[in-house]
Amino acid sequence: MIRPLGEKVLVKPAEPKEVKKGGIIIPDTAKEKPQEGEIIAVGTGKRAEDGKIIALDVKVGDKILFGKYSGTEVKIDDIEYLIMSQDDILGIIK
Amino acid sequence: MIRPLGEKVLVKPAEPKEVKKGGIIIPDTAKEKPQEGEIIAVGTGKRAEDGKIIALDVKVGDKILFGKYSGTEVKIDDIEYLIMSQDDILGIIK
Amino acid sequence: MIRPLGEKVLVKPAEPKEVKKGGIIIPDTAKEKPQEGEIIAVGTGKRAEDGKIIALDVKVGDKILFGKYSGTEVKIDDIEYLIMSQDDILGIIK
Amino acid sequence: MIRPLGEKVLVKPAEPKEVKKGGIIIPDTAKEKPQEGEIIAVGTGKRAEDGKIIALDVKVGDKILFGKYSGTEVKIDDIEYLIMSQDDILGIIK
Amino acid sequence: MIRPLGEKVLVKPAEPKEVKKGGIIIPDTAKEKPQEGEIIAVGTGKRAEDGKIIALDVKVGDKILFGKYSGTEVKIDDIEYLIMSQDDILGIIK
Amino acid sequence: MIRPLGEKVLVKPAEPKEVKKGGIIIPDTAKEKPQEGEIIAVGTGKRAEDGKIIALDVKVGDKILFGKYSGTEVKIDDIEYLIMSQDDILGIIK
Amino acid sequence: MIRPLGEKVLVKPAEPKEVKKGGIIIPDTAKEKPQEGEIIAVGTGKRAEDGKIIALDVKVGDKILFGKYSGTEVKIDDIEYLIMSQDDILGIIK
Repeated sequence: MIRPLGEKVLVKPAEPKEVKKGGIIIPDTAKEKPQEGEIIAVGTGKRAEDGKIIALDVKVGDKILFGKYSGTEVKIDDIEYLIMSQDDILGIIK
Repeated sequence: MIRPLGEKVLVKPAEPKEVKKGGIIIPDTAKEKPQEGEIIAVGTGKRAEDGKIIALDVKVGDKILFGKYSGTEVKIDDIEYLIMSQDDILGIIK
Repeated sequence: MIRPLGEKVLVKPAEPKEVKKGGIIIPDTAKEKPQEGEIIAVGTGKRAEDGKIIALDVKVGDKILFGKYSGTEVKIDDIEYLIMSQDDILGIIK
Repeated sequence: MIRPLGEKVLVKPAEPKEVKKGGIIIPDTAKEKPQEGEIIAVGTGKRAEDGKIIALDVKVGDKILFGKYSGTEVKIDDIEYLIMSQDDILGIIK
Repeated sequence: MIRPLGEKVLVKPAEPKEVKKGGIIIPDTAKEKPQEGEIIAVGTGKRAEDGKIIALDVKVGDKILFGKYSGTEVKIDDIEYLIMSQDDILGIIK
Repeated sequence: MIRPLGEKVLVKPAEPKEVKKGGIIIPDTAKEKPQEGEIIAVGTGKRAEDGKIIALDVKVGDKILFGKYSGTEVKIDDIEYLIMSQDDILGIIK
Repeated sequence: MIRPLGEKVLVKPAEPKEVKKGGIIIPDTAKEKPQEGEIIAVGTGKRAEDGKIIALDVKVGDKILFGKYSGTEVKIDDIEYLIMSQDDILGIIK
């Protein structure tokens, strides 16, 4: 497994939902829709200017929404993950 | 529902008013007009450089005016919302 | 009415004066001249890095001079206003 | 009159000197020469990051040298002035 | 050997794994995949704005994941290394 | 004379040395060589973020080396000078 | 001699090693290889935001590795040197 560094997080992207319009399956990814996913691991936090560590606002297990092209793809044991910065996260799905 | 992160807010955009000019309905969106909407949810606040949290200047229920192309579209239970930064908000409609 | 956010201000632009040169009316806007206007509403102020609020240097009623293409147009009750940042203001007309 | 805002100053540009070379009057502006002028009004000062006001290093009456294309042109009672930031000033003519 | 400066680290990149798809060996580098490697040496740390040294979050011997085109190639005793900034590191492989 | 502002300095550039190669005089300026010159006047110093003045590291009379295209040309009593920022200075010639 | 200013250093670049491949001498500079050199003189240090001086992490006599196109060329008594910022240095050769 990977422990992200600093303000980065490891995310397992959810399978994109399929939308049926008039019998044609339009993958939800057609439009620039934000993606859903789950937080698998978090970094230690962001460094303030004086070096102090600022804890992240998300934690392992949170379901999140993030911008379409966020993060870097990483394959671990043949499963696709994304490593991204906390700033790429739009919100937490309640 | 979505809880926005940090200094982001969740906005329900108002339906663009239609303007009749000589019988032709010109959607208000024709010009680069700012949009109206209502704040549905707010993040915990912006981080100052030393990590302290600065509360947002807007709250749930505020009617706001925001720049035309602000934010990221998000569909929740088939309703279109926008997630944007507080900096995209021009003002609060009184 | 609109209450601008943070360091933004709401401005009522003055009617551009018309200049007669050899019988042709040249709207004052021909050259990249700064515009005049009046402050109608002000935000709560700018945030310093530590989150403290810094009061604005202008107040409601001030006659101001601002750069030609400053701000975002906003129509309120059919009257055109501009919402701009305090940094767009060149000076106060005495 | 105009009271500039913050770290801006109001400058009355000097008439560009004319240089005679072989009978042809070459306005001094031909080359990218800095311009001379006099300070007519000054802003209250620059804001430090913590919001404190830092007084300007120039005062009304100072003769100054500034970069060729600095500032915004402003006409007051038919006289051309420039409003510029203190950073545009190269030095004070002694 | 090389002692990296400040917030830089010296990394020994791992050999890219080969992937067999239908008999054709596709080097793992085909896609923009992050790379793996081991930390060989670390700088003294990053300077905070006030000059204080902030220790790095990685140490010698850590197995890491870093962005595809990170760092500068350096040959020492005929072995290829990379010198990169800590910010280029995505995470530590556990 | 001119008193530079803030972190600027007034420099009298040295005459570029001429180099003879095979009988052809190649002005030293052919390559992107740094220039030499003497400091004639200095500003009061650079402002730190909190507004405090940081004295300059050079003084009147220092012989200096500066980047080829640094500064702005200024003619005073028919003599060519340069006004530049301290950051343009590479070093002091001992 | 030259005393570099602030966070700059004076470096004597090492002669690029020649590599023989199949009888053709390929100067080591063919690829974007970092360069080696020795520190001849150092500036007083970098200024923190509050103006405090932060000593450099390198000293006279250190053998260093620096990015291929770092610094500005300077000829002193017919010997080629480079003046560069400390940030251009990758590491110290032990």
